[in-house]
Amino acid sequence: MSSREKIPHVVVSRLPIYLRALEHARQEGLTCISSQELSERLGISAAQIRKDLSMFGEYGKQGRGYPIAALIEALRRHLHIDRVWDVVLVGVGDLGHALARYKGFANRGFRIAMAFDKDPERIGTQAGDLVVEDVRLLARRVQEAAIKIGMIATPAAAAQEVANLLVFAGVKAILNYAPIHLTVPDDVRVEYLDPVIPLQRMTYYLA
Amino acid sequence: MSSREKIPHVVVSRLPIYLRALEHARQEGLTCISSQELSERLGISAAQIRKDLSMFGEYGKQGRGYPIAALIEALRRHLHIDRVWDVVLVGVGDLGHALARYKGFANRGFRIAMAFDKDPERIGTQAGDLVVEDVRLLARRVQEAAIKIGMIATPAAAAQEVANLLVFAGVKAILNYAPIHLTVPDDVRVEYLDPVIPLQRMTYYLA
Repeated sequence: MSSREKIPHVVVSRLPIYLRALEHARQEGLTCISSQELSERLGISAAQIRKDLSMFGEYGKQGRGYPIAALIEALRRHLHIDRVWDVVLVGVGDLGHALARYKGFANRGFRIAMAFDKDPERIGTQAGDLVVEDVRLLARRVQEAAIKIGMIATPAAAAQEVANLLVFAGVKAILNYAPIHLTVPDDVRVEYLDPVIPLQRMTYYLA
Repeated sequence: MSSREKIPHVVVSRLPIYLRALEHARQEGLTCISSQELSERLGISAAQIRKDLSMFGEYGKQGRGYPIAALIEALRRHLHIDRVWDVVLVGVGDLGHALARYKGFANRGFRIAMAFDKDPERIGTQAGDLVVEDVRLLARRVQEAAIKIGMIATPAAAAQEVANLLVFAGVKAILNYAPIHLTVPDDVRVEYLDPVIPLQRMTYYLA
């Protein structure tokens, strides 16, 4: 792909899911995998998978499937996770602690590099391998380190203020755990992880 | 709506987001809200919002906007959260503890009613207001209580086995925090909350 604009966002949104499935398949010792096998593992049609992955070049060979290692490498490159991104965490309550200690970021492109809170009782305490810092130092620290990704794990009432601070500090991508929609400039992306939303999406279908 | 089949899933998936925004607006003291105002708060076009909400009857009046309380009530009814759903939590590490103590479920239709783990050092300990139970008791306990919703907060390696157990116990909706795709019968829904997936969706767009 010469231009990143050419891949629709709905396709982009599936790429990390393909990547995760391919990495699991590699852990199982597989070297090739068919679109049919991926389809069974992901609940996405094989035709859709072939169409999506064709945007990244001709990796699939008829009858042999996709070479897993090469496709992982291509997806990691396109998703820009052939590097490790530093992430700033704001809000170190229960959830923030769980995130700071989560082992699942390391091999998948991310590292929580700093953690901030405004509670004097939390500042200076340990969160995973980090020492919790005073949120009043956030803008300077994040700017100096040129961190582009933030994670908000504060209560809802504080989240917009924290988002403003992150944007001011140069952050361009925010993962928001607070149950509130954030207003940010057009050049900043936000993804939401409010657990109630997917729960309510499922209860719609429950009798 | 007479039949639940008539609303496309992509619309259903936006309903909880509308509901959350309407509840925030009500907390702010508003009684009516226009599709334009909702659009600005959610980043969804006003036309899309009007189209989605028109499926639930004629709540919006030209020039006056939606009556917030009535629309909240209708959405809660359609999403089946005009009641409280008991949820079973499996895996009480850092994340499980954070979920057990999370205050954001209570007013939005959910209550973690039981928590299970297989680690003898965790069984019998406190998680929020609950006592962690032995996972070997899960099937019987969940069946007896007729719980239909499960939350998996175990490591990836254990998640499929736990999912099988939940399905066996009669669970029909699973919120999966483990970074792995789950295979379940057609009548069981799964939603995923792996934080790395949305992070990778954003790094695609970062230079």
